[in-house]
Amino acid sequence: MTGLSLNQPLHKARGERPEGVFTIFGDRRRTNTSFVDRVARLANGLKGLGLGPGDRVAMLAMNSDRFVEYVYATLWAGGVINPVNTRWSPLEMAFSLDDSETAILIVDDAFLPLVCQLQEHTQAPLVVIHAGDANPPEGMHGFEALIEANDPAEDAGRNGDDMAALLYTGGTTGRPKGVMLSHANIATCSLSLTAAAEHGGDAPGLHVAPFFHIGGVGVVFQFAFRRAPQVIMPMFDAAETLRLIEQEKVGDIFVVPTMLRWLLDHEDIDKRDLSSLKSIRYGAAPIDTTLLARAMKAVPTAGFMQVYGQTEFAPVVTCLPPKDHHGPGAERRLTSAGRPLPTATVRIADPEGRDVPTGEVGEILVKGAQTMLGYWKRPEETEAALRDGWLHTGDAGRMDEDGYLYVVDRVKDMIITGGENVFSAEVEEALASMPGIAACAVVAARDDEWGERVHAFVVTLNECEASLEDIQKHCRKRIAGYKVPRSVSVVDALPLSPAGKVLKHELRATLAATEVS
Amino acid sequence: MTGLSLNQPLHKARGERPEGVFTIFGDRRRTNTSFVDRVARLANGLKGLGLGPGDRVAMLAMNSDRFVEYVYATLWAGGVINPVNTRWSPLEMAFSLDDSETAILIVDDAFLPLVCQLQEHTQAPLVVIHAGDANPPEGMHGFEALIEANDPAEDAGRNGDDMAALLYTGGTTGRPKGVMLSHANIATCSLSLTAAAEHGGDAPGLHVAPFFHIGGVGVVFQFAFRRAPQVIMPMFDAAETLRLIEQEKVGDIFVVPTMLRWLLDHEDIDKRDLSSLKSIRYGAAPIDTTLLARAMKAVPTAGFMQVYGQTEFAPVVTCLPPKDHHGPGAERRLTSAGRPLPTATVRIADPEGRDVPTGEVGEILVKGAQTMLGYWKRPEETEAALRDGWLHTGDAGRMDEDGYLYVVDRVKDMIITGGENVFSAEVEEALASMPGIAACAVVAARDDEWGERVHAFVVTLNECEASLEDIQKHCRKRIAGYKVPRSVSVVDALPLSPAGKVLKHELRATLAATEVS
Repeated sequence: MTGLSLNQPLHKARGERPEGVFTIFGDRRRTNTSFVDRVARLANGLKGLGLGPGDRVAMLAMNSDRFVEYVYATLWAGGVINPVNTRWSPLEMAFSLDDSETAILIVDDAFLPLVCQLQEHTQAPLVVIHAGDANPPEGMHGFEALIEANDPAEDAGRNGDDMAALLYTGGTTGRPKGVMLSHANIATCSLSLTAAAEHGGDAPGLHVAPFFHIGGVGVVFQFAFRRAPQVIMPMFDAAETLRLIEQEKVGDIFVVPTMLRWLLDHEDIDKRDLSSLKSIRYGAAPIDTTLLARAMKAVPTAGFMQVYGQTEFAPVVTCLPPKDHHGPGAERRLTSAGRPLPTATVRIADPEGRDVPTGEVGEILVKGAQTMLGYWKRPEETEAALRDGWLHTGDAGRMDEDGYLYVVDRVKDMIITGGENVFSAEVEEALASMPGIAACAVVAARDDEWGERVHAFVVTLNECEASLEDIQKHCRKRIAGYKVPRSVSVVDALPLSPAGKVLKHELRATLAATEVS
Repeated sequence: MTGLSLNQPLHKARGERPEGVFTIFGDRRRTNTSFVDRVARLANGLKGLGLGPGDRVAMLAMNSDRFVEYVYATLWAGGVINPVNTRWSPLEMAFSLDDSETAILIVDDAFLPLVCQLQEHTQAPLVVIHAGDANPPEGMHGFEALIEANDPAEDAGRNGDDMAALLYTGGTTGRPKGVMLSHANIATCSLSLTAAAEHGGDAPGLHVAPFFHIGGVGVVFQFAFRRAPQVIMPMFDAAETLRLIEQEKVGDIFVVPTMLRWLLDHEDIDKRDLSSLKSIRYGAAPIDTTLLARAMKAVPTAGFMQVYGQTEFAPVVTCLPPKDHHGPGAERRLTSAGRPLPTATVRIADPEGRDVPTGEVGEILVKGAQTMLGYWKRPEETEAALRDGWLHTGDAGRMDEDGYLYVVDRVKDMIITGGENVFSAEVEEALASMPGIAACAVVAARDDEWGERVHAFVVTLNECEASLEDIQKHCRKRIAGYKVPRSVSVVDALPLSPAGKVLKHELRATLAATEVS
């Protein structure tokens, strides 16, 4: 049987609209014919370098049209993409290349200087392809030369449950794990999300998120299924984003809320014609309603949509479609992550896996055809994550009677103090409303008496002070006594991940170190 | 791995919106909780009657909420639905029951009188379930009694490539064949079509097409994936359709163009509030632009969408979305069947399977995850239909440079005269423009000189006459000489299928009989 294939949009593009545009990068525009031809030639090049069915190919690079060609050429050749997180240290990169047994690495000019270090740290030798305009350094193959020297390959025809991507995740939670996603996993998510809500259709889509994330590369596949030309810039830049929206008449964009703020704060926001925008999707966090109101005023043509998910679900679990951003009840809905996709069955369970009553908090479990194949070479962690046939997201949340999901916290960020469960998010919400507090994060501290106690890290505004007593007084009016922080650290800044998430494991480590000393 | 499952919307409905409405039939409304509970109990009932994994269950009935329950109960129990075409003769019905080795038949009050005949004609004994309000006749089980007597079953968990439906097709082309469709086939089509164009969202959807067709039951699955309550009437009735749209605030409806005409011609059209309609889909034929203009005026809130497909592709191959019905080029696009779904790769091939140049006519081939598992117990016909990995639709068509597909004709309706290929549709189009012609159909007649010759059947308007000479004179101005009919039969009416298609095999049979006599 033929299952869903991520390559299908290429066959369609070439056959149905040969003169259509596939990628736009700087001055370079590739027609569907040219794009698929390059992909098929590069695929043959990769096979010539030893790529066999299911073998991994890595790319360490900024976003570019060549990155999209790498993605499809790897799949066309029957391989598995393993894009490298550019924000990792060389040691972390080397770990993921070794762990995934990746033999071929593509690197752009920006990351050429890292290749030597990587080669030192990886255990097996790497075949390196240089994706640039100049001739490749000695000992490396040239991306363009491979395309030139090879005839187009036939599509290897992988589909359905065949692995398509090995994406390393878990940067905020210790040693990265390779999430194995199949053609069907990712294609199902593309179709299901597109089916779930309004979108930009076949108008050009603009990429601002890095392609090494599922939130970046996943959008490549979505745009391809929707016949949307892919507009690419090396990395997010507010002025360039605004310029490209106007120039390419972009219909669809996926941003994190922070980027949206930068766009709105940019001086060009009023100078550029953004009326082509039909859809602005944002993820990772609910949107600040003030920010949303500004954005809706600045781009009245666009529908706003929130998505929530994780790599293990390829990735989208829920979405809050544009129409949920308006009308009666919108204020409440905007604090949710929306409703599960047509292909996501969600339930909220207690630690024993039993359903909790509607509206109560528990772990978010999800089931459906988007569920990852598993963690690469981690049978025990796979078993734990997928036990009883449900993907255990590790997120805590609740669902209301209309099926809207409220993501409360990470389960592992839960603090158990004196036998009571405290979700750090609730404490943080209470803290954030205190005058003089610029940012805060709440974690568990080891406590001889209570097992764990609620500990707050706070960043104060300007010259403000925040004593433990003041904090406790403020919080006690808002949350139960056992949830009120019992200790506090005032810090200059919170450690953040590249996606803007607070790195709580670092805070816990800081705390543990303090306790020891 | 978990593949797509048609049962997923039931798990979601029960878990996410227990108080939502699943079916509306007359005065009866079933909540999601009640619907899934009934389905799970009926599933246990079916298992108690001997249903094993992959076994077929037939239903011979008008549309009703119980029909939808039959569909899902069969799938929930791990079985395969085999709905019976109500328009067949008892002999044809018995053939399909025997051919499919169906042991369980559900029948409603309307078809109770046929049961005895069916039992006479089928080779194996049938277990019969009576789906009605009264007590079942002796020797039959009661649909409601089974639900009452059984505990809810667990979902058998079939998914992906597991067979879900065995749909008999080919009424117009001889002995019916059972098309085997999997959970993934049908679920992919539901998602892909929903992704491809605007639709009614989660507003109620109204069924007017019979559930024994993929065009009926397929829409059940689409609505379910979209969370749309399903509004059902026993069979199409214009007044009732208009009444239900108003009463239930229907957002989406699928009709054949003939039904649309009946709706527009009905006296209630101006009395009913149809403003809830967001989407009117029509299939089987391109829409008459005059009819479309009337419809768009009558229901300005609705987007119109054409779909083209066949059961073997589960079923939708292309769609012409609402936006293609307006603006520059609309007139031309409206003569097309639209563009292939995201999950349909289409190519146009010559009899040797080679691509024809863009714009030229050939057989429409299609590929993708919607492709049927095959024909039930017909390995040779399956092999022929799926050769080289492409589904051979048997339809002739051409594709333009923007990827729009124009369905020209059935390949087997092509006439080969003196070595030249003539597509009957082209001749019919020329004929239809002749004053005095009400309807026409063109078929091949055996011809000693030319192998085949073009023969026209015409129905004249009122008292008009249509001589062969007049017809030839009219056509010669419009089409090539070898395409002009060489003989003609003036008839009172053309034989039509229930879907309104001309039954050309009957015309050919008539012609053959005439030649012999």
